[in-house]
Amino acid sequence: MVSYEILPIGYVRGGRLDPRDDDWGATRAVIELDAAIFTADALVGLEAFSHAEVIFVFDRVPRDKVETGARHPRNRAEWPLTGIFAQRGKNRPNRLGATICRIISVDGTRLTVAGLDAIDGTPVVDIKPVMHEFLPREDVFQPNWVAEMMAQYW
Amino acid sequence: MVSYEILPIGYVRGGRLDPRDDDWGATRAVIELDAAIFTADALVGLEAFSHAEVIFVFDRVPRDKVETGARHPRNRAEWPLTGIFAQRGKNRPNRLGATICRIISVDGTRLTVAGLDAIDGTPVVDIKPVMHEFLPREDVFQPNWVAEMMAQYW
Repeated sequence: MVSYEILPIGYVRGGRLDPRDDDWGATRAVIELDAAIFTADALVGLEAFSHAEVIFVFDRVPRDKVETGARHPRNRAEWPLTGIFAQRGKNRPNRLGATICRIISVDGTRLTVAGLDAIDGTPVVDIKPVMHEFLPREDVFQPNWVAEMMAQYW
Repeated sequence: MVSYEILPIGYVRGGRLDPRDDDWGATRAVIELDAAIFTADALVGLEAFSHAEVIFVFDRVPRDKVETGARHPRNRAEWPLTGIFAQRGKNRPNRLGATICRIISVDGTRLTVAGLDAIDGTPVVDIKPVMHEFLPREDVFQPNWVAEMMAQYW
């Protein structure tokens, strides 16, 4: 079976220590690139963007807790049974998170962001600049449970 | 050194055969989940969303072509030297792509999307629903070279 080995490009430093579900909006954190691999060159020009998408590994999720089927989001029975690929929960195959954050500053191999919902020590596997052209080009709609679930998230 | 093994959850079927840079907008493709791991449960409820983000591996990029520093986007000297994490080019550490696509239909373990810039056979490692609350919550800005580069992309 084909598989791919991915390596942390760096780690989340600071920010929150506990993986609770809500209140991520005020969080600031630093992504510190691995200085054995990267220099400041890797981040050159990123400060000209307002936002970056950070791809990270939910490394604190035990592999035997990964879901492959459907479940109620946050196990709340009032929300519909939803496939793991129709939700963004952390117990997902490959345990990858992807969050758009606001760029606060770039300093050498350190990127400071606001609104990253990943805890201190989380391995980061990619950073991509957010480009207008890669955001949805049509109206976005979603089921009603999402707004209820996200009401206290940021 | 810590590393993570990621497995394809499925593959891109159809769409484009060649990895050229532009004209992705009209592309339709199917993401076929690995039926040895997943059933239709994994995609339940996804059709209630307009868009999904597809995370995939640029598996046709040789590992020795991965960039870790800065380069001119598309090697065009008129665009500024830009760090690999300030561009979305495919020759990046961990070779992960992340693209927001429009959902056309869900049929069992097959998801049909429009606007996926990944070629036929590409391994997919995650699918996430696009939620309003995970799009930028502030104004988005970007450097001028991006609009020039993206003019013919979709």
